[in-house]
Amino acid sequence: MKTSRIEAFSDGVLAIIITIMVLEMKVPHSVDLAGLKPIMPVFLSYVLSFIYLGIYWNNHHHLFQATEQVSGGILWANLYLLFWLSLFPFTTGWMGENGFASTPTAVYGFVLLMAAIAYYILQRAIIAREGRDSLLARAIGRDWKGKLSPALYLAAIPLAFVSRWIASGLYVLVALLWLIPDRRIERKLENHEA
Amino acid sequence: MKTSRIEAFSDGVLAIIITIMVLEMKVPHSVDLAGLKPIMPVFLSYVLSFIYLGIYWNNHHHLFQATEQVSGGILWANLYLLFWLSLFPFTTGWMGENGFASTPTAVYGFVLLMAAIAYYILQRAIIAREGRDSLLARAIGRDWKGKLSPALYLAAIPLAFVSRWIASGLYVLVALLWLIPDRRIERKLENHEA
Amino acid sequence: MKTSRIEAFSDGVLAIIITIMVLEMKVPHSVDLAGLKPIMPVFLSYVLSFIYLGIYWNNHHHLFQATEQVSGGILWANLYLLFWLSLFPFTTGWMGENGFASTPTAVYGFVLLMAAIAYYILQRAIIAREGRDSLLARAIGRDWKGKLSPALYLAAIPLAFVSRWIASGLYVLVALLWLIPDRRIERKLENHEA
Amino acid sequence: MKTSRIEAFSDGVLAIIITIMVLEMKVPHSVDLAGLKPIMPVFLSYVLSFIYLGIYWNNHHHLFQATEQVSGGILWANLYLLFWLSLFPFTTGWMGENGFASTPTAVYGFVLLMAAIAYYILQRAIIAREGRDSLLARAIGRDWKGKLSPALYLAAIPLAFVSRWIASGLYVLVALLWLIPDRRIERKLENHEA
Repeated sequence: MKTSRIEAFSDGVLAIIITIMVLEMKVPHSVDLAGLKPIMPVFLSYVLSFIYLGIYWNNHHHLFQATEQVSGGILWANLYLLFWLSLFPFTTGWMGENGFASTPTAVYGFVLLMAAIAYYILQRAIIAREGRDSLLARAIGRDWKGKLSPALYLAAIPLAFVSRWIASGLYVLVALLWLIPDRRIERKLENHEA
Repeated sequence: MKTSRIEAFSDGVLAIIITIMVLEMKVPHSVDLAGLKPIMPVFLSYVLSFIYLGIYWNNHHHLFQATEQVSGGILWANLYLLFWLSLFPFTTGWMGENGFASTPTAVYGFVLLMAAIAYYILQRAIIAREGRDSLLARAIGRDWKGKLSPALYLAAIPLAFVSRWIASGLYVLVALLWLIPDRRIERKLENHEA
Repeated sequence: MKTSRIEAFSDGVLAIIITIMVLEMKVPHSVDLAGLKPIMPVFLSYVLSFIYLGIYWNNHHHLFQATEQVSGGILWANLYLLFWLSLFPFTTGWMGENGFASTPTAVYGFVLLMAAIAYYILQRAIIAREGRDSLLARAIGRDWKGKLSPALYLAAIPLAFVSRWIASGLYVLVALLWLIPDRRIERKLENHEA
Repeated sequence: MKTSRIEAFSDGVLAIIITIMVLEMKVPHSVDLAGLKPIMPVFLSYVLSFIYLGIYWNNHHHLFQATEQVSGGILWANLYLLFWLSLFPFTTGWMGENGFASTPTAVYGFVLLMAAIAYYILQRAIIAREGRDSLLARAIGRDWKGKLSPALYLAAIPLAFVSRWIASGLYVLVALLWLIPDRRIERKLENHEA
């Protein structure tokens, strides 16, 4: 089994999820700039989720580029990841429309957490197939980002009830961790650890 | 005629159907976890339909991997399958929003039944083209799942008016039948039959 | 310039149009079968448009299979076709929700007519590029269906104000013309003409 | 890293954006042609945005055809472009539903401007990778359209508050600039400059 069709299907689902989120940004009835003001939190949550989905697409793209064969287990691990990502428009809309209120912000983090776990499972399934000495296994390495991110989500979920800004700040932080090019940070961290 | 474009188009339609179903899960106005409670049946019906569409995508993927040439008949059989699958968001929403009420649950089963028949027709059309001794014909074999599933849907439709939980339980059962990896079950069943 | 990306983009747009039309079929609030009754005309118009889009996808697929090179003119002729097809969900919804009332049914026919003209322009643009002796030019031949269809749409538009059933009957007739496999009809017609 | 998957994903997103805009054109409750009248500005803004997205798809297609390798920077520059394009349905709906009122028309221009800048950044990122003497760098040349367009958007934004027709006229003008085949205009402009 080749990877091309699983990539095409995932691309389709990700493209639709990313675009459907915009539909949560309802066209305002007001005609002046003030009409955009109540939409700002929805817009900000859209930007955040867009970046997250961009990161997932990016990582997914790299993951399957290093994959040569697809098994039934990988197909389902991939669908499981897509399932959690498909809930992004819902949690993004709920968080945005309520100005980052505690519960929706915590639920947003929960879905982020589940997607991160699903991604981890997918990665494991592929490495199990490709072998521990494969290019992919070596490329992923110790995967400190993949381990730090769920920890930060886990912290953010209860913290959302303390302050919505701490929780959403943590979501932004994780996104930045992934956005900033890998090598330099990793080198820095290695130096820091040494 | 090659299979690549029919696969790409089907992937597109399946990806959209799977994602559009989320739109039936309307963002609640309430800001606490209780706001999610009325959405739970919609969420559960979404999960069920997501799994079904995942199974269809999976099987479709395998089916066309074993297909070499596409005829006009196959194109239309494929579109006929996509037609019934395209009704999933509607029946999923109707069943979910009404807490698995009898009629919507029966109609959900009817669409499952029609999709299963459409899949069977597609399989027949491809085997007719590929030949009875082809790799595909041998791989499908006696196709006990493909024959048992419509029978279970047929049973579930009237049973929905007896108890909604029997009907939806049967839908879950069929989904599990397809989710659990093939070989072991088939071997067991063969032993059972012997 | 190769045809693969124009095919992929068209597949995407067609897949979305075909699936978005379902969203016009609003989930009923009623829980019994009677709740489906007011949706029936929407459902019927959905079926009709699904078949039309299936035919367009099918023909588009064949058209580009015989095409080797894509020019700027072909790209825009293709987008012009997609534009008219993108109006299908709107006219389908308007016609269906108003029980095939005269004006929406006429407007539905107008969009069918414009799409047919756009398809004709696309075909011309491709033949102009491929050459009059190309495989494609010979395959299309006299293209009696491509010429008869717009004539029938043109007749249906005013007839919608006489009887909605004549107009929608004509739309069904054109769909059947394209659905029934080519060769036999063509042979019959040739015999009829001879 | 090859370009095929970045193209497939972009095609998906563009196809969905272009099709989702139609959903802003709500099916009228009225059954006569007068029912279409209030939709006309929405329809016109849809046509304009459809053409713009067609131009972006077209240019994107050409851009990546001349690209051989994709870097992380290019992936993100591409996502940044898709982000601004994903706001088209929102601004198109806002402008259309309010009959091209000043503020929505200015905001529409702002999103056009940001998309143009994002496209410019993407082009730079690709040229930086491909080299200043690459086929692409030479094909783009002085890129007078790419420089004139943002200037015209910048002019249109304040002018929307003077007259909505000047601003939207400028948007139409830029679209025409890109629609009309390149060579002749460029030659004319070069003669004019000489």
